[in-house]
Amino acid sequence: MLRLGGSCLGFAEPGSSSAAKGESLADTVKTVSCYADILVMRNPKEGAALLASRYADAPVINAGDGGHHHPTQTLTDLLTIKRLRGAIRDITVGFCGDLKFGRTVHSLAKALARYPHIRMLFISPPELRVPGYITREILEKEGIKYAEADRLEEVMPELDVLYMTRVQRERFFNEEDYIRLKDSYVLNTEKMELARPSLLVLHPLPRVNEIDREVDRDPRAVYFKQAKYGMYVRMALIASILGVVPC
Amino acid sequence: MLRLGGSCLGFAEPGSSSAAKGESLADTVKTVSCYADILVMRNPKEGAALLASRYADAPVINAGDGGHHHPTQTLTDLLTIKRLRGAIRDITVGFCGDLKFGRTVHSLAKALARYPHIRMLFISPPELRVPGYITREILEKEGIKYAEADRLEEVMPELDVLYMTRVQRERFFNEEDYIRLKDSYVLNTEKMELARPSLLVLHPLPRVNEIDREVDRDPRAVYFKQAKYGMYVRMALIASILGVVPC
Amino acid sequence: MLRLGGSCLGFAEPGSSSAAKGESLADTVKTVSCYADILVMRNPKEGAALLASRYADAPVINAGDGGHHHPTQTLTDLLTIKRLRGAIRDITVGFCGDLKFGRTVHSLAKALARYPHIRMLFISPPELRVPGYITREILEKEGIKYAEADRLEEVMPELDVLYMTRVQRERFFNEEDYIRLKDSYVLNTEKMELARPSLLVLHPLPRVNEIDREVDRDPRAVYFKQAKYGMYVRMALIASILGVVPC
Repeated sequence: MLRLGGSCLGFAEPGSSSAAKGESLADTVKTVSCYADILVMRNPKEGAALLASRYADAPVINAGDGGHHHPTQTLTDLLTIKRLRGAIRDITVGFCGDLKFGRTVHSLAKALARYPHIRMLFISPPELRVPGYITREILEKEGIKYAEADRLEEVMPELDVLYMTRVQRERFFNEEDYIRLKDSYVLNTEKMELARPSLLVLHPLPRVNEIDREVDRDPRAVYFKQAKYGMYVRMALIASILGVVPC
Repeated sequence: MLRLGGSCLGFAEPGSSSAAKGESLADTVKTVSCYADILVMRNPKEGAALLASRYADAPVINAGDGGHHHPTQTLTDLLTIKRLRGAIRDITVGFCGDLKFGRTVHSLAKALARYPHIRMLFISPPELRVPGYITREILEKEGIKYAEADRLEEVMPELDVLYMTRVQRERFFNEEDYIRLKDSYVLNTEKMELARPSLLVLHPLPRVNEIDREVDRDPRAVYFKQAKYGMYVRMALIASILGVVPC
Repeated sequence: MLRLGGSCLGFAEPGSSSAAKGESLADTVKTVSCYADILVMRNPKEGAALLASRYADAPVINAGDGGHHHPTQTLTDLLTIKRLRGAIRDITVGFCGDLKFGRTVHSLAKALARYPHIRMLFISPPELRVPGYITREILEKEGIKYAEADRLEEVMPELDVLYMTRVQRERFFNEEDYIRLKDSYVLNTEKMELARPSLLVLHPLPRVNEIDREVDRDPRAVYFKQAKYGMYVRMALIASILGVVPC
């Protein structure tokens, strides 16, 4: 928004805002939409953006609602693949990390299901598998090929795109599993050697230690480019909602 | 300010600001007025804005000083009444809720005392009556008609404007009174049926539960319109202080 | 930046930022430099800005790295002396307060060492003397005259510029020393009477109680002017980095 010459009102500070006085989300949204032309909302509760859109007098952009969805990240991911591969089709996409709670994974898998000839590989510990409402209700219904795997090494050679996410220690059910499995979800230069020369490694950022810093120098690591595309795609989204015509 | 094309510097975060290092209000105000063309100040201490105006090299807007006054809210309230009734005169205005600590009530009552033929009704629990410096020193001195009431139902039919505010449970002296009285200060559709078709219901927002959500659909509930007028009135105030001539 | 018509992205809130999820400084800097044209960084760790400049794709301005340096404050201090004395040369500069941990003192002493005929007097309790890497490695190497003193009164008559800083009680090794010495580092009207009519008193602000409020009215107290110069010098620095040509 700032890059487009607009300005932003922040309502993030929980201590100083009206929410601290007990105001409902509906009232906050109604009031803010008196002042702003667009509402961008990130909220820890699933469905918060949908609810907000019912009360707001201005368009609402969902910038993440709990573990549910994160559509602007998905637009970013799609743009990154499209720009760096030319098209979104005929590819095998690996998702690695915490696939149970990772809203960016859920949003991207759902979006990719609409493109032709996409195959998906889900690499995670058994406890953190992608939810059934993604695999059964979306992928199987649409006839999308997918498989699940325990270790990143097994699938590296097959991938065109690798979507890395964080695995938080506290999400594992027991310490033994964590110690046994954690290295399987860390991308390093050895694992990169198993991969195709045309692989694209994406990550929604921030990264903690699931991608070794040495991988950054590999031209296939495109997550910082992806961050830049994220800025452009959000500028485009705002411009399109406000009805700004490209020059 | 943002709508006018200007920008804002925030000094709200108590942790990161100079105030955390022990800087006095006078020094903060002097320093900030080196950088800014206008200071807008909300402070929990009564008289803070007055003090600030003595040290600042730039104009100071009081955006609320403790339980004392809140002049830009009052400008908002006056504009709302004027726009939606055509004039501010010959009306009965009810103030409901916590009238002892509510700075918006004190500011508005004081301002309305300057308009012709205004009658005021103060509806609150006995512990939260409007302070004597309002009733005796302003209203009685100016010959303004006013009365106090315990229950909203009693006065609904007489009102042209109803100014609702929050009643916080912890402000009641005993639990019994709270339970006995609390419903008297909640505006709902039943109470709205007792009122005139031309009533205007105002609220400085945020609302907690003192206005039932069903009332929002009543065209006499104008508090979200009022929020929008609040933006315009503050734009006008800033433009006028900066000497911007309307086109 | 705002005065220049630009806008700012804040990444200060430790709770809501990516740093809270465990992101490294290098990654934060890389990501932010995808969005911004300039990075301005204040960090409690010495060397943080230098490290940041190695990873950023945009220029980095060091706005203070721990107890190390504070270059934009030093530009401010130099501009203040130059504008108010006409030149930076042939002067005796006193530094008073916590000279051990005060990064603004370290930066200014180092910068002044490059100007002709500067003499420096360091006034501090013995525990808070200026570090050896300043006196031995910079001043003595460059042949700069300097001396150390325990009490401000002793040196007041000799000074052309007095640079005041805070002395924090907790920095003293024992309470006795604190009580015995603290008044020596408080500037008041009596001490000002000992000084030259042309003295300039500077302070990086915020001030706590090391300068008595009565001194503010003395025309030799220029610290609020200095704050204003600080805004201009930072505007000039940003404009120069962005390649903006002055009209």
